[in-house]
Amino acid sequence: MDITEFFQLSDGKWFSQQTSHHLASQQTEIGKSNLRIEMLSKGDPVVVQLCQEYQVDPALALCGNRITWDGTVERSEKKLKGSTVLVAIADPQTPNQGKLLLKRNQAVKPSAAGRYIIGTDEALTLITEFETTRVEERLWFASLNLRLRTSTLKQSDGFSTTSFCSEIRMGGAQAAAKSTATTAQPR
Amino acid sequence: MDITEFFQLSDGKWFSQQTSHHLASQQTEIGKSNLRIEMLSKGDPVVVQLCQEYQVDPALALCGNRITWDGTVERSEKKLKGSTVLVAIADPQTPNQGKLLLKRNQAVKPSAAGRYIIGTDEALTLITEFETTRVEERLWFASLNLRLRTSTLKQSDGFSTTSFCSEIRMGGAQAAAKSTATTAQPR
Repeated sequence: MDITEFFQLSDGKWFSQQTSHHLASQQTEIGKSNLRIEMLSKGDPVVVQLCQEYQVDPALALCGNRITWDGTVERSEKKLKGSTVLVAIADPQTPNQGKLLLKRNQAVKPSAAGRYIIGTDEALTLITEFETTRVEERLWFASLNLRLRTSTLKQSDGFSTTSFCSEIRMGGAQAAAKSTATTAQPR
Repeated sequence: MDITEFFQLSDGKWFSQQTSHHLASQQTEIGKSNLRIEMLSKGDPVVVQLCQEYQVDPALALCGNRITWDGTVERSEKKLKGSTVLVAIADPQTPNQGKLLLKRNQAVKPSAAGRYIIGTDEALTLITEFETTRVEERLWFASLNLRLRTSTLKQSDGFSTTSFCSEIRMGGAQAAAKSTATTAQPR
């Protein structure tokens, strides 16, 4: 598995069950979202533009994912709605890792490019530093149609929030191509 | 990190926030528990007895953990209360993995010994097969005082439930020994 394969496998429509554990208050927040993940090729204008924003040579871009979500938080008026673009930048010295460029359509902006790492277990780790927060995400496919994701938020005084998403494929190229995927063996 | 270090680090008192995602019904179940995890040495009578139950030579036992939990499920009368013992059995060919013996004090019994694997990222994977269910757990330390755990339950017709626990150390030998642990760097 390389980052291009991982992003390609992610392409499709997903239903996501989301849980956040707020560690200090011991409160749990539950959400549900519909996700649309689109594979972006290295030549896609969105990829090229994001490279330019980060002052990275677009020739080093490997691929990207555009992620759009629309959901709700239980017992709350809060809407989960937004989109982002992730772009993976090759690191010639270490083929299983590289820079990660992140675009948000809100005012949230990472302080610098993050990093991605594909582990020996085929899980993808994404590390992004914001002004006062370090976010570390781990994504992996339990099967072709079940993607799991954990994340930790760390402030200067320690971890504040952990979260977990179970994402079930509802459609897309992969689901159509491999109809036996729901019974695929776990890793 | 080897299995003995992992079990030793787990020794202590923990507060656990737990979430289960039931994939077919899209329901989420939230629980909270107090955990007590005790390190068991390879010579401990409990370890020796569990080896005998599985007909495994006790000389191959590396160590064990006794885990006792007491908690509640939100909006439910259901009590989370029980205990179990895990024993790791050395595999001379592969030092980072081996057999996992699991004892429960209820009538639930695994169909055979499971397996443990310590990954290159220092996460511990536990795989146990029950009659109709395969449970795969992944445990890792985000810091010395924050242990995270995901699990997937797979039936013959596919994945049924995923779950996530955030476990915060409330006391024990490690917490006393290393008072700076709350600000320990993540992996």
